[in-house]
Amino acid sequence: MSINMRSASVEDAPFIFSLINKLAEFEKAADQVKLTLDQLLQDGFSSNPLYFCHILESDGIKAGFTLCYFRYSTWKGKSLYLEDLFVEPEYRGRGLAKLALKRLANTAVNEGCGRFEWQVLDWNEPAIMFYKSIGATLDPEWINCRLEGKAIGDLANSIPLSSI
Amino acid sequence: MSINMRSASVEDAPFIFSLINKLAEFEKAADQVKLTLDQLLQDGFSSNPLYFCHILESDGIKAGFTLCYFRYSTWKGKSLYLEDLFVEPEYRGRGLAKLALKRLANTAVNEGCGRFEWQVLDWNEPAIMFYKSIGATLDPEWINCRLEGKAIGDLANSIPLSSI
Repeated sequence: MSINMRSASVEDAPFIFSLINKLAEFEKAADQVKLTLDQLLQDGFSSNPLYFCHILESDGIKAGFTLCYFRYSTWKGKSLYLEDLFVEPEYRGRGLAKLALKRLANTAVNEGCGRFEWQVLDWNEPAIMFYKSIGATLDPEWINCRLEGKAIGDLANSIPLSSI
Repeated sequence: MSINMRSASVEDAPFIFSLINKLAEFEKAADQVKLTLDQLLQDGFSSNPLYFCHILESDGIKAGFTLCYFRYSTWKGKSLYLEDLFVEPEYRGRGLAKLALKRLANTAVNEGCGRFEWQVLDWNEPAIMFYKSIGATLDPEWINCRLEGKAIGDLANSIPLSSI
């Protein structure tokens, strides 16, 4: 049995898009995916891509993917962020996730990143145990805040600045 | 009393660097700032900047700053992320933070972002109340995971891939 990780090409985009939706389903948030395949293609496979992907293979068969981009920390500088890591259920237990994290750690080193980060759902105990086993630390002190969709425009168009 | 928000220039970098350190002190993490002024200048004020900053002014005096960059969500596409927002204590209560968030919401709209995001410390009640008041939602279900410094290299150089 051989496992492999390679850079994704534009031909992999439909596979990546299908796994994004499977991952959202696992995360109990299938209805949250507003992204389309066209948008994914435009954002990642044209000039000035907003992210980069790798394909995970088991015996030459596509079995999973990663999607990353660079962030910035005012404490540590340039950081590598892993937005998505997903392995199809039938290919789990073969070391694909560990291969991905090890290779991406190497990317982080080569890019001079002070951090390599991702997030985990607080109820995903197997993932939390796995991440701890590879040396990651969890920091539940920081909470995500966000405005989405219409709420962004509502704030942008709120009361005149002079009266704030 | 007038308040204003403008794009930062390279001359503002020392001011921004001083506020990054003041913010870390407020966050009880002053020892976490490994970034230097030189690195900050190189990362944000050269070609291919990793972030962009705004200066907040009160009656023409520098009173605070924001530092942002773009992220990517596989659910919502391109996102605007606010890494740092800090107003000097003596200039609080004048609406500078609200001005900043409103203006950045406008940036998010103009850039076609599906999300405008930031994080808050779970014990920072005044900030949490303020963010909720402008329509933000908090999502404590996702926990930050990270490798930093030596731990990144340790994973990159861990056991040979063939034995994973």
